[in-house]
Amino acid sequence: MALKVALLGCGVVGSQVVRLMHEQADDLAARIGAPLELAGVAVRRLGRRRDADVDPALLTTDAEALVTRDDIDIVVEVIGGIEPARSLILAALNSGKSVVTANKALLAEDGATVHAAARAGNADLYFEAAVAGAIPLIRPLRESLAGDHVHRVLGIVNGTTNYILDQMDSSGASFSDALGEAQALGYAEADPTADVEGFDAAAKAAILAGIAFHSRVTAADVHREGITEITATDVASAKAMGYVIKLLAICARSDDGRSFGVRVHPAMIPRTHPLAGVREAYNAVFVEAQSAGQLMFYGAGAGGAPTASAVLGDIVAVARNVLAGARGPEESTYADLVVHPMGETVTRYHVSLDVADKPGVLARVADMFAKQDVSIQTVRQEGHGADAQLVLVTHRASDAALSATIEGLRELDIVRDVVSVMRVEGEDAS
Amino acid sequence: MALKVALLGCGVVGSQVVRLMHEQADDLAARIGAPLELAGVAVRRLGRRRDADVDPALLTTDAEALVTRDDIDIVVEVIGGIEPARSLILAALNSGKSVVTANKALLAEDGATVHAAARAGNADLYFEAAVAGAIPLIRPLRESLAGDHVHRVLGIVNGTTNYILDQMDSSGASFSDALGEAQALGYAEADPTADVEGFDAAAKAAILAGIAFHSRVTAADVHREGITEITATDVASAKAMGYVIKLLAICARSDDGRSFGVRVHPAMIPRTHPLAGVREAYNAVFVEAQSAGQLMFYGAGAGGAPTASAVLGDIVAVARNVLAGARGPEESTYADLVVHPMGETVTRYHVSLDVADKPGVLARVADMFAKQDVSIQTVRQEGHGADAQLVLVTHRASDAALSATIEGLRELDIVRDVVSVMRVEGEDAS
Repeated sequence: MALKVALLGCGVVGSQVVRLMHEQADDLAARIGAPLELAGVAVRRLGRRRDADVDPALLTTDAEALVTRDDIDIVVEVIGGIEPARSLILAALNSGKSVVTANKALLAEDGATVHAAARAGNADLYFEAAVAGAIPLIRPLRESLAGDHVHRVLGIVNGTTNYILDQMDSSGASFSDALGEAQALGYAEADPTADVEGFDAAAKAAILAGIAFHSRVTAADVHREGITEITATDVASAKAMGYVIKLLAICARSDDGRSFGVRVHPAMIPRTHPLAGVREAYNAVFVEAQSAGQLMFYGAGAGGAPTASAVLGDIVAVARNVLAGARGPEESTYADLVVHPMGETVTRYHVSLDVADKPGVLARVADMFAKQDVSIQTVRQEGHGADAQLVLVTHRASDAALSATIEGLRELDIVRDVVSVMRVEGEDAS
Repeated sequence: MALKVALLGCGVVGSQVVRLMHEQADDLAARIGAPLELAGVAVRRLGRRRDADVDPALLTTDAEALVTRDDIDIVVEVIGGIEPARSLILAALNSGKSVVTANKALLAEDGATVHAAARAGNADLYFEAAVAGAIPLIRPLRESLAGDHVHRVLGIVNGTTNYILDQMDSSGASFSDALGEAQALGYAEADPTADVEGFDAAAKAAILAGIAFHSRVTAADVHREGITEITATDVASAKAMGYVIKLLAICARSDDGRSFGVRVHPAMIPRTHPLAGVREAYNAVFVEAQSAGQLMFYGAGAGGAPTASAVLGDIVAVARNVLAGARGPEESTYADLVVHPMGETVTRYHVSLDVADKPGVLARVADMFAKQDVSIQTVRQEGHGADAQLVLVTHRASDAALSATIEGLRELDIVRDVVSVMRVEGEDAS
C-alpha cells in the first residue's frame, strides 16, 4: 500500500520535491517500508510552465479539497507565507494528516496555533527545511540534544546577507555594490528587504530559540537589525583588527538561566572562530551546550535541491511514523522561560568616534563609559586633527548601559560623530 | 510511572550519565513525558571509588541478572569492547528491552548480530555516542538525509590523532614529541595503538559507511593506515604547499555508484577546506550528498560529558518510543552495495623522491608514471646534487596504478629513495 502525499506549491522547492520523489522512488520505498505516491499538487495557476515533470492530471487549484481528501496521508507545504498556508496546514492537521513544511514565517508568527492543531489531530508536524535549508538542525536540537542543556545558539542563517558581507570582506566592495552582485547572481531578490533587514533570519532565530530553550518564541520577540548600514570602512576596520562582520542570529540564556534573549544583528567575530570561515551563501549554526560543549552545523542554507533534501528527510520520518502508528516529538514549551528585553542583553561592543584632537578628549570619553559602568578593554586613537578617531572595545556590558553611553557621547561637544557601534561576539569560543 | 534504566559500566562516560540523569531529572521527565529512574548499575568491582554519586544499593556485579530484570525498560551500555558487552546487549534485546550504546568496536565488528537481535526483540538500538561523541551524526545521517543520496563522507573522527597532527602542524614537533604531549594532557592513552594506528577511526568509518550507503560494513572492510610514520618534514612540506595533514575516515561511492570504498589514512587536504580548520582534539565530519550538497558537523568527539550528552539524547528518544509503543528507525542495509578493494580507490597523490641530480631523471620518472597511466599534475625539483628531490602531485588515479608506479620507481637506479607517498583529498570542496 502506497502512502499518498499531497504537495502544496510547485515552485523552486516544490518542483525539486517532485523530482526527488520520482528519481529516488525505489530508495525511498526501501527506507520507509512502503512506496510514496504523489497524489496531488496544488498550484495557483494550472497553465504555468514548471521545472518539474508533473503529471498534469495531478495538478489542482483547489488546495483545500486536496488537503482534506480521505486518501491523503501526508501533506507537504512549500507555498510559504502566512495565508493560505496556515489555513491549509490547519485543515490537514485537523483531519489527522501529518504535515511537513518549510514555512519559517508561519512557524515564527503563529507556531502555537499550528503546533496545537498537530497535537489535537494526533498528527506529526515536521519542519527541518524551515531553518538553514539542508542543514540538519531542528532534528539535532530537538532530538540529539534532548538530554542536554543548551546555553547558546549562534548562527549564520541567511545566505544572502552572508554572501554580501563575504563579498564586502574579500573585495572591499560597498554594501550596494555587493548587493547588486548578489542580485545579479540570484542570491538576492529584486526586493531584498526580507534578507538585508534581517526579517528572514529573525523568523529562523525565533524557531531555533523556541526549540533550544523549550519555550514559546515568536518573531515579535526577536530584536532585529539589518546590514544596510554596514560600510566598507566598518568591514575594513574589523578586518584590520582580526575580525569579520557577520549577520548573526543569537539565542542566549541569561547568566542566571531564568530568561533568554533572541536577536539578529551584524556583529564582529574573531577570524579564528569557526563561524568566521563560513563563506559565500553558506549557512552555519554554532551551538553551545552544557555537556556536549561546542557544536557546529554547516551547509547550504537555501536553494531548491538542498531545501528539498530536508523536506524529503522529513517525509521519510513522517511516513515511517504513519506506518508504525506513531508520532514524532511534539512541540516542547514546558520550560516556559521569559524572553528578556534587548536592554538586558550582555555582550561586548566596538565603538568608533570622530573626535576633536585635543588634550583631555580621552578622559572625557572614558568618563562617559565609566558613568554607565561600561568598562573599556582597549582604546586606540587613529589619525590626527580633523581625522582623529577613537576606537574603543568594551568588556561585557548590558545593551541598556551601552545605549546610554552612546547617547551621552553624542552630547559631548568633543565628539563630532559616533561613526559606528558594533557588537562583538564569539570571543569565548576556541 | 517512571521508566527504569539499567546502566552497564560506570567509568568516564557512565559516571557522567549518572550525574546528568540526576541533575537534569526534571528536564528529562518533561521532555520524555515520564521520569527516568536509574534502577541498577553494573560494575566490575563494588568497592571502587567512583566520580559519580551513585547510591551503593544500585550497584551490582551481576550484569546479566540486571539486563533481564523484568522491571527494566532501557539498557544503557558504556562498558565498551566486544565481551561481555555483546552478550549483555543481546540478552537485553532478546528480552525486548531497548538498548542505548556507545560501543563502536562491537557495532563495527558484529553489528549484524546486534541489529538482528533488535529487530527480533522489537526493540530499539540507538548508538549516537559510538561515533564522534557529542556530534549529532548518526541521527542526521539515518534520518535527516533519509531522502537524499550520500556520495561521500570525509571525517576527522579521532581526537587523539587530530591533536597530534595539529601539534605537529602548528609547532613543527615530531610525531613522538607530539604523542608525548598528547599523553601528558590525557588526550592519548599510555598504549596509543588504537588511536595512532587508526583502529578507532576504522571502527567509526565502518559504522558511518554502513549508514550512509545502506549496506553492511564491518571493520574488516576498512583499509587502515595510521599516522606513526608521518614526519615533521612531511608536515612542513604539506604546509609549504598550502595543505595540512589530517587522519581521515573516508567513505566514498565509486564513480558508477555501484560500490564504495571505506578507508582510514593520513591525507593532505587544502587549508581552505572546512576540515582543515579543525584544531586540537575536535572532530568534524564532512558529508557530500546529491541534493543537500556539502554539510559539515563539528564538535567534541570524545570525553565523558560530551559522550554522555549523546547517550542522554538517545535515552530520551528511546524512552519516548517506549511510552508510545513505537520504534525508531532500524538498521537499513537494503542497498547491499559491495565494498571495493583499496586498489580501486581513485584519488590524487603527492609523491616525494630522492633522486640523482643528472639530466634525464625527470624524463625517466615521468615515464614510469605514464606506463601506469598515472597523469602528473605538477612536478617540482627541490635542492641539488646529493639533496635533489622531486615532488610530484598526480591527477586522479587508482590506488593500484599508483602502487605499481611506486614499485617501479623503487627499481629505478636514479631514484635513491621514495621519501613519502601521501593521498590528497578534499580538492573539489569549496
